[in-house]
Amino acid sequence: MTKKQIITIAGGGSTYTPGIIQAVLNNADRLPLSEIRLYDIDKQRNNDMYLIIRYMIEKEGLTDVTIVATETPEVAFTGCDFVFSQIRVGGMKMREKDEKIPLNHGLVGQETCGLGGFAYGMRSMSGLLEIVEFVQKFAPDAWILNYTNPESIISEAVRRKFPHIKMINACDMTISIEETIAVNYGYDRKNWIPTYYGLNHFGWYTNIYDKELKRDIMPEIIEKLKTQEMQVADFNEGDKTWQEAFQMMSVITKNFPTNIPNNYLEYYLYPDMVVEHTDLNYTRANMVMDGREKNTKEMAEKIRNGVKDDVLNFNFGEHGQYIVDMATSILNDERRRFMLIVPNQGAIPNLRFDAVVEVPAYVGATGVEPISLREPICDFHKGMMEAQVAAEKLLVDAFFEKSYQKALQAFTLNQTVPNARVAKKILDEMIIANKDYWPELR
Amino acid sequence: MTKKQIITIAGGGSTYTPGIIQAVLNNADRLPLSEIRLYDIDKQRNNDMYLIIRYMIEKEGLTDVTIVATETPEVAFTGCDFVFSQIRVGGMKMREKDEKIPLNHGLVGQETCGLGGFAYGMRSMSGLLEIVEFVQKFAPDAWILNYTNPESIISEAVRRKFPHIKMINACDMTISIEETIAVNYGYDRKNWIPTYYGLNHFGWYTNIYDKELKRDIMPEIIEKLKTQEMQVADFNEGDKTWQEAFQMMSVITKNFPTNIPNNYLEYYLYPDMVVEHTDLNYTRANMVMDGREKNTKEMAEKIRNGVKDDVLNFNFGEHGQYIVDMATSILNDERRRFMLIVPNQGAIPNLRFDAVVEVPAYVGATGVEPISLREPICDFHKGMMEAQVAAEKLLVDAFFEKSYQKALQAFTLNQTVPNARVAKKILDEMIIANKDYWPELR
Repeated sequence: MTKKQIITIAGGGSTYTPGIIQAVLNNADRLPLSEIRLYDIDKQRNNDMYLIIRYMIEKEGLTDVTIVATETPEVAFTGCDFVFSQIRVGGMKMREKDEKIPLNHGLVGQETCGLGGFAYGMRSMSGLLEIVEFVQKFAPDAWILNYTNPESIISEAVRRKFPHIKMINACDMTISIEETIAVNYGYDRKNWIPTYYGLNHFGWYTNIYDKELKRDIMPEIIEKLKTQEMQVADFNEGDKTWQEAFQMMSVITKNFPTNIPNNYLEYYLYPDMVVEHTDLNYTRANMVMDGREKNTKEMAEKIRNGVKDDVLNFNFGEHGQYIVDMATSILNDERRRFMLIVPNQGAIPNLRFDAVVEVPAYVGATGVEPISLREPICDFHKGMMEAQVAAEKLLVDAFFEKSYQKALQAFTLNQTVPNARVAKKILDEMIIANKDYWPELR
Repeated sequence: MTKKQIITIAGGGSTYTPGIIQAVLNNADRLPLSEIRLYDIDKQRNNDMYLIIRYMIEKEGLTDVTIVATETPEVAFTGCDFVFSQIRVGGMKMREKDEKIPLNHGLVGQETCGLGGFAYGMRSMSGLLEIVEFVQKFAPDAWILNYTNPESIISEAVRRKFPHIKMINACDMTISIEETIAVNYGYDRKNWIPTYYGLNHFGWYTNIYDKELKRDIMPEIIEKLKTQEMQVADFNEGDKTWQEAFQMMSVITKNFPTNIPNNYLEYYLYPDMVVEHTDLNYTRANMVMDGREKNTKEMAEKIRNGVKDDVLNFNFGEHGQYIVDMATSILNDERRRFMLIVPNQGAIPNLRFDAVVEVPAYVGATGVEPISLREPICDFHKGMMEAQVAAEKLLVDAFFEKSYQKALQAFTLNQTVPNARVAKKILDEMIIANKDYWPELR
């Protein structure tokens, strides 16, 4: 029987933790659990989450699972088997700045895309590299499953410093897209074998084979997207932002009907429409702070006050299940297929070899085995991706070299940015706003 | 002794013809001449130019040079040795639309860059391919020296259809830049060995070795560009547009001081500033029509009316000399070094193999031998170039496949374009404006 696992959640105080724990509990047969450790530098949030997780575990009647909340890396990581990494350096307050500073100049203001994503990337790299260093030191055999954003930038930074690290970089956005398409147009995505390529939050489907229907259903989904906008499926927080994001998939598909796009391409292809739809004074960060964040804090407070009713009110979605599936795929050598963020090295044959890309990959006991695409990608996607990859690499250079010039090049080349003048203005504002988090650029 | 050459000028009615003829006459020892043929579909302009060229030749006392003006391809090309190609499909009236349609939407409106360049490219390809077909038919051994714009697009189109054609694609912009730098900062560019890479109108110097000073003078020129804006040198038409263009080299260099840029990069890095400086109602096409074009017409009229004074009033610059140097380099195997537009095929090692690039190249009796760069290019330049190359390839696809979708992809990916919505609007307007010149897109 498989040894009971110790799972450390880096960024344990995150509101995503309960969903992950729920998925872990739901899959106890495949992922037997001895201990959960919540690691977070924000003690208050971590303690709140500790109460919620203890409450969940007690409700399940699992008396033999230990729960730990700690700010001490040695306690968090020593001897653990898996690290689930979901840190957010600077928290929601800095996310708000990532969104509002570019918006103030008429540009896309978003968590992972555009210059907000680059500002967040500069913060995330140091945080994630620190986690990796702790794991190297205290649990060198542990697998790190990373879904900290922005993933392409983090992956690029980590692989430069730790090229042989036991780390999987994954994003569940393709699952959300597939689930939303399936629910809206009457399919069961469990039958699907999707083929997709891109950068993280920047890609396209090339084929969706349905095993039941025994055909590629992408052409018919494209026709549906062109004529009937999707509604947000249950599993997402049914807020305005997601509704608009999935509707933008129809706008993109009408104009570029060769592939099904990742919805995040709205930021690169239709930044003007996105900015038009955004309230500069109340962005996604504000919604999350007033919604999920506040809600979670209130649940912890209820537990602390010994409220007797069922206090939990989460909408988990597929996120936690996705992480757990990766863990079990390694643990039990299940060889499941995921969209993963990996060094290209020829997987996309006509994209630069040293890019970090998102492609289908199998996961088993030896780690990740990306599939190698059988066709070169088209010039439209290649052109967009090459520019964006180069911009991301320049940002990572800027971080390691502490180079203002590289940061300016990265900001200028970011494909949401129309000119170098506004790139410099936003960079200069971002440097001030991020002075506690970014390396000092010279 | 070298056989006396027959030179055909395709686009003979162009106002650039006298400068080329003057350079041919100045180099009679290296390029002995028996006949000049002016080929143009615009009979009126061609006949005007015939008068001017005959006047020039008579002034030189060259009684043994034949001059022909013709609209008939067979007459123009049969038995010729060199074709100098400088056609402008649609003339200045269409150039005005190339400039004004994008400007109307707040985007760069320019002859060779941005969407104006793409519209012109779609017109130019058919015209140039027709010239190449005539030469293949009537003078298959002739060398075509092409400087018809936009050169990258034309080169890509021609090499797809005629991969083994005896054609050299050249642009004198780097000469103009070098001459302007030398005149402004007190150098003699005759001592220079410049290294440069890019796409046409989209590149950077990496080194300027001065044989007299025995060092790379690029670092000191960069310092000068940062502190002292250049004035237009004599040889250019001293108008406002060129003055601003060369001043923008200082803006670019201040912000990106790693290389000396081609001034045309202003359109990609600072499109906002360029648009601010442009008068939507009076663009470069209007200046040329009211200046060089009107002036040339008046000279022809004076000759027609038998005016006795010296009627010629041209400002030739280096353009004609550049063309003649290429011709003599082939004819006499001189192995001169030029910046030429060639298939990449590894010359820039880390740029896509099938790009059309501009790099230093030697020209001799066997044609063009590009040099292979010894260093990979930096990510900033690679990112910009890869996106732009892909956009140009999509435009050429659109032309050959008559594909609206490919044209929309090309317009969207063009690095002066901020979003797909405005790309589509401008494309749709360009289709109407160019209905007599573009293939019908489906």
